[in-house]
Amino acid sequence: MFEKLMENLKKNPPLVHNITNYVTVNDCANIVLAAGGSPLMADDIEEVEDIVSISSALYINVGTLNSRTVDSMVKAGKKANELGLPVVLDPVGMGASRLRNESVNRLIQEVQFSVIKGNMSEIKALNTSCKNSGGVDAQEEDIIVDENIEESVEFAKKVARKFDCVIAATGAIDIVTDGKRVSIIRNGHPMMSRITGTGCMSGSVIGTYCGSNKDNIYEATAMAAAAMGICGEIAYEKVERMSEGTGSFRRYLIDAVSLMDYKTLKEGASIETR
Amino acid sequence: MFEKLMENLKKNPPLVHNITNYVTVNDCANIVLAAGGSPLMADDIEEVEDIVSISSALYINVGTLNSRTVDSMVKAGKKANELGLPVVLDPVGMGASRLRNESVNRLIQEVQFSVIKGNMSEIKALNTSCKNSGGVDAQEEDIIVDENIEESVEFAKKVARKFDCVIAATGAIDIVTDGKRVSIIRNGHPMMSRITGTGCMSGSVIGTYCGSNKDNIYEATAMAAAAMGICGEIAYEKVERMSEGTGSFRRYLIDAVSLMDYKTLKEGASIETR
Amino acid sequence: MFEKLMENLKKNPPLVHNITNYVTVNDCANIVLAAGGSPLMADDIEEVEDIVSISSALYINVGTLNSRTVDSMVKAGKKANELGLPVVLDPVGMGASRLRNESVNRLIQEVQFSVIKGNMSEIKALNTSCKNSGGVDAQEEDIIVDENIEESVEFAKKVARKFDCVIAATGAIDIVTDGKRVSIIRNGHPMMSRITGTGCMSGSVIGTYCGSNKDNIYEATAMAAAAMGICGEIAYEKVERMSEGTGSFRRYLIDAVSLMDYKTLKEGASIETR
Repeated sequence: MFEKLMENLKKNPPLVHNITNYVTVNDCANIVLAAGGSPLMADDIEEVEDIVSISSALYINVGTLNSRTVDSMVKAGKKANELGLPVVLDPVGMGASRLRNESVNRLIQEVQFSVIKGNMSEIKALNTSCKNSGGVDAQEEDIIVDENIEESVEFAKKVARKFDCVIAATGAIDIVTDGKRVSIIRNGHPMMSRITGTGCMSGSVIGTYCGSNKDNIYEATAMAAAAMGICGEIAYEKVERMSEGTGSFRRYLIDAVSLMDYKTLKEGASIETR
Repeated sequence: MFEKLMENLKKNPPLVHNITNYVTVNDCANIVLAAGGSPLMADDIEEVEDIVSISSALYINVGTLNSRTVDSMVKAGKKANELGLPVVLDPVGMGASRLRNESVNRLIQEVQFSVIKGNMSEIKALNTSCKNSGGVDAQEEDIIVDENIEESVEFAKKVARKFDCVIAATGAIDIVTDGKRVSIIRNGHPMMSRITGTGCMSGSVIGTYCGSNKDNIYEATAMAAAAMGICGEIAYEKVERMSEGTGSFRRYLIDAVSLMDYKTLKEGASIETR
Repeated sequence: MFEKLMENLKKNPPLVHNITNYVTVNDCANIVLAAGGSPLMADDIEEVEDIVSISSALYINVGTLNSRTVDSMVKAGKKANELGLPVVLDPVGMGASRLRNESVNRLIQEVQFSVIKGNMSEIKALNTSCKNSGGVDAQEEDIIVDENIEESVEFAKKVARKFDCVIAATGAIDIVTDGKRVSIIRNGHPMMSRITGTGCMSGSVIGTYCGSNKDNIYEATAMAAAAMGICGEIAYEKVERMSEGTGSFRRYLIDAVSLMDYKTLKEGASIETR
């Protein structure tokens, strides 16, 4: 399946509209290009519908949300729904503030998302609107590990069914599910959390892969999660070998995404499907 | 001529005021520094006049324009005109939305630009306000190649005369013209379009080179286009040799700009003048 | 002392809330992570109090200030004061515009800062509201050198007492003082001023180190200034050895911060205390 998805990406490079935060926006644009797409980054409410209309997918990330951009996100999301484009949501820091909870809840009510991607604390806050005091990182007790994998999978499936979308719960282990099928992905490296933007870039890669594979959103999302994890492993290997730091890690991560192909994916992916 | 322009840059390092998009703003600031200038990045309407007043050049880029910054751009541009500073416009994505067309048209009506730089789709949209559905990349049929070079040159000259400015139409081949003189520049590498910000950085380098060479805007613009192209070639060579990806390419590109000197420029430039 | 401060950083990694400019915001987030903390970057007035409430320190940087964010900065600063968190101010470009002077003066009146960090032109403008026409760089006559070190120290001490905070006046030589104690730090390399964001990153590192060392603000600030200087030296050494440019320098600088430990700090720091 992944071979076909990769081919589609090559044959129909997607235009990916990103409405995202100003912290990692440059990383998002670069990773869309590295992944084989072309990024569009407009966020003014007066033009988001025009931009969505020429796009293949929409990625919404609330990292540094404000009232101006939330309105743009809703408008863009509705237009994308109208046109049948994949729409990916990254509810960054969900649970960390009232504004964040209200904005994300509004987005979820007004827009039908194809994929929602977040760490387990964000996914939990999504479901319960509970308080998450860990900021943008997952709370200790929410991190997906082998000990809690069964209940994590069940929880992710439940949320996927509730919002009728694919859930990508990311962490040391990633869970991707459409409510029925499940991919448990054991790729990646802890150093990925020592640079900013890894999560946002994963979201943009999901948007890119889905943009060329509208009929296989679940598979494209699992492929993106595995690909990012493999790239994290490749980047860490280089950093380790040369005794380098996080600045170099970031560069190697983007390098690896730009060099990703089916062979690397196939050999590197550690995916358990259920 | 370039030798003299380079000397002026060293002798009078310019302060370059950039009002630009939040995607590649960091790249723009870094490339101004790499090119030998000092960047100023203010965009609030209450301070742009103060900032223009201490600057040597102004670079305006509409990449992620919104109503707030368009007003600042107009105000800054008028002040720069009043003070006789070079003003460079980058009409990113011109043609991709109504807001973009209206904003750029307003800028062109209210501000006299010294240089307008864009890919051929943007330059065409500038002239005709026609629809450009390719987003921020040039449409297939607009890319400057040897087959359409004659008509592309004539078109660029016409637009330069119409707006009484230097036009830099960039692509696989760059055309720089003041409406009479023409430089056709065959430098660069396709990998430049696989990172975000190459175009924006080119605009900032034009602003930097013009900032120290106010009486030679046409020549300084041609020099900037050639220099960026050569740096793209140098960066690609390194990436190729080491089998690296786009993250490394970006680093080598900035490295090369920071190491650019007259010797490298003279040996590497492939410029046909008419 | 530094050994203890470093241990605290490891034992209690701080959540650092940064309200900063959109030019170097990505560098700030990455350097907080590199320095051992976790960055929070929210700036909407509706959520800054919630975010401050889960943070260990607040860093305010006026690089691209506008009316929207100044209100958020004041609100966040007051909340941080209420909670007893360290608050660091970076008055970027102070003196370069009326808006900047008024905004920074408002911040200083409404918020009690723990540390104010800037180049000597900014620190002077802070004290006198005098005009600074050099943009974001220090004026020639304000640069701290051995010839003016005595009067620079006395001036910094006076400003520290006036604002009842630690002053970090940065440049070729850094002066850190709480009005009584003084650290004169001779680390760093001129190439640090050839990339954007060095100053902003220093501010974020101060915020990070202070976040885990609330009872030793003066020492943590001196340690941050020395650490950044040492990292600049390490980065320059690599660039020099490989004949690389400013793009590589930036990467090595972030690498070095992420690899900084007590041993490197102890061996590399050149600090004269008074």
